Amino acid sequence: MRLRLTPRDTSFFDLFAASAQHLVTGANILAEMLGADRQARKVLAKRMSDAEHLADEATHSIMRRLNQTFVTPFDRDDIYALASNLDDCMDFMEEAADLIVLYRLDGLPPRVADQVQVLQRAAELTAEAMPRLRSMSDLHEYWVEVNRLENQADKAYRKLLAELFDEVTDPILLMKLKEVVEKLEDAADAFEKVANTVETIALKES
Amino acid sequence: MRLRLTPRDTSFFDLFAASAQHLVTGANILAEMLGADRQARKVLAKRMSDAEHLADEATHSIMRRLNQTFVTPFDRDDIYALASNLDDCMDFMEEAADLIVLYRLDGLPPRVADQVQVLQRAAELTAEAMPRLRSMSDLHEYWVEVNRLENQADKAYRKLLAELFDEVTDPILLMKLKEVVEKLEDAADAFEKVANTVETIALKES
Amino acid sequence: MRLRLTPRDTSFFDLFAASAQHLVTGANILAEMLGADRQARKVLAKRMSDAEHLADEATHSIMRRLNQTFVTPFDRDDIYALASNLDDCMDFMEEAADLIVLYRLDGLPPRVADQVQVLQRAAELTAEAMPRLRSMSDLHEYWVEVNRLENQADKAYRKLLAELFDEVTDPILLMKLKEVVEKLEDAADAFEKVANTVETIALKES
Repeated sequence: MRLRLTPRDTSFFDLFAASAQHLVTGANILAEMLGADRQARKVLAKRMSDAEHLADEATHSIMRRLNQTFVTPFDRDDIYALASNLDDCMDFMEEAADLIVLYRLDGLPPRVADQVQVLQRAAELTAEAMPRLRSMSDLHEYWVEVNRLENQADKAYRKLLAELFDEVTDPILLMKLKEVVEKLEDAADAFEKVANTVETIALKES
Repeated sequence: MRLRLTPRDTSFFDLFAASAQHLVTGANILAEMLGADRQARKVLAKRMSDAEHLADEATHSIMRRLNQTFVTPFDRDDIYALASNLDDCMDFMEEAADLIVLYRLDGLPPRVADQVQVLQRAAELTAEAMPRLRSMSDLHEYWVEVNRLENQADKAYRKLLAELFDEVTDPILLMKLKEVVEKLEDAADAFEKVANTVETIALKES
Repeated sequence: MRLRLTPRDTSFFDLFAASAQHLVTGANILAEMLGADRQARKVLAKRMSDAEHLADEATHSIMRRLNQTFVTPFDRDDIYALASNLDDCMDFMEEAADLIVLYRLDGLPPRVADQVQVLQRAAELTAEAMPRLRSMSDLHEYWVEVNRLENQADKAYRKLLAELFDEVTDPILLMKLKEVVEKLEDAADAFEKVANTVETIALKES
């Protein structure tokens, strides 16, 4: 029998995969919310809040395990960063959903749907990539694609901002809409940060 | 006589306690400011600015000592994070106070007092917890309570935001009030980050 | 022949110097933009976007080298932080330039020029300081001066904010101007963070 002095705690991969799965749920709820009426939105906001709580618990599980594990599958700092980055994605999506309900924004500009589609795609790619951290395989395509999506989201966001300022004449409505599209843009940025952290991890291991 | 090759620099605890004490001062100044007239507010803003400078110096002392100390009582990164987090609490409170004066906000909504009360309580809990870092005892209750407070502050903030948009019809006044309540919310978030860093430190040592 | 087991990768210094040089370009483009007409601004915004792409590539080169280098001239975390901080300076300046074009802001308040002058000076000081990281000499003056500039910028920013709220009666124009001056203030803060990271590096080496 060989004594394993440095057991690699593989369950981190499962925890990251679970955490990313909540992001898919969150992005899908956001997409449903766009087409829903005010009543349905409240139900969806409640589901979003539940998803955010689950994501929060997933983050805490990762942090707890990190602080109690001596040997980790990759750099402690990178595990910490990845967990925080995933958590940020959820927080921004939840805030956007909450503001849509809070501000009673019945008509959202069509480009908001484009922003949400980017988030859905980014969430799917992230959830698919997390299990591949175990083998460190096929991660390159993931972060190239998420970076491409974020660039696309950034351009869409700036066009949307210009449109809002051109078309919305009620300053208070403008403030509301601007805040929602900013939160969605923050969420897209947060997905890019997840991808950049994964790139860092993959490069160190290569 | 035994040569101590690895003296643990205990004065970090004193520095953190001093730093947190400035937060209590800052939160109390904010509370006084709410009930004060315009003239008294200017005096209070000056006192806030002084408190912020002292907090800044406390942060710099920690950073200097950190960079010149070989053996630290806990992880260097955690010391750095804790000092930065404490500094952020002060910065947000000082910015809120400054904006109240700058924007000449005579009438603040009652819920703002609730936000400030949370900050006062969080500051007190933080100041009481810092000396306990030395023995790593009784820290669990501290960060559970600060997390609970932050959740409460977050809910109050969202209600306040909805109220502002419902009741304030002057968009420029709305922008001013929104910015102040956002800074107070940022301060509450910053206190939670302090508590989370303390949790990380405590878990590693346990 | 002696085998060098720990070659110090000196080219990090060149990469940082190159990265900071893009900041000088960016700050100068911003200054040109203030006096330019709408047509010239579009050309300048394109040049700014190019500068931002080059800065982005410089950051990626540093990150790639960092992840593939075993022995670095100073702490890995500090190299990472310095590269990120430099990148942030550029991002905020580029966003400010983009918003000026996007919002068609023909008349900017005179104090905005003061903000941009601070950025130009901070960028020059930063570009001059980066090569001195190699010898760790004369860095003290650099970060003292950048911290002084940032304090000056912060005071100018708060006065500007008060002026905007006093003088601009169109809430939508106010929102636009406020966002631009905030981005410029964020850029000044980002330069201060670069200087603080350099201070940390210098103190560790002293």
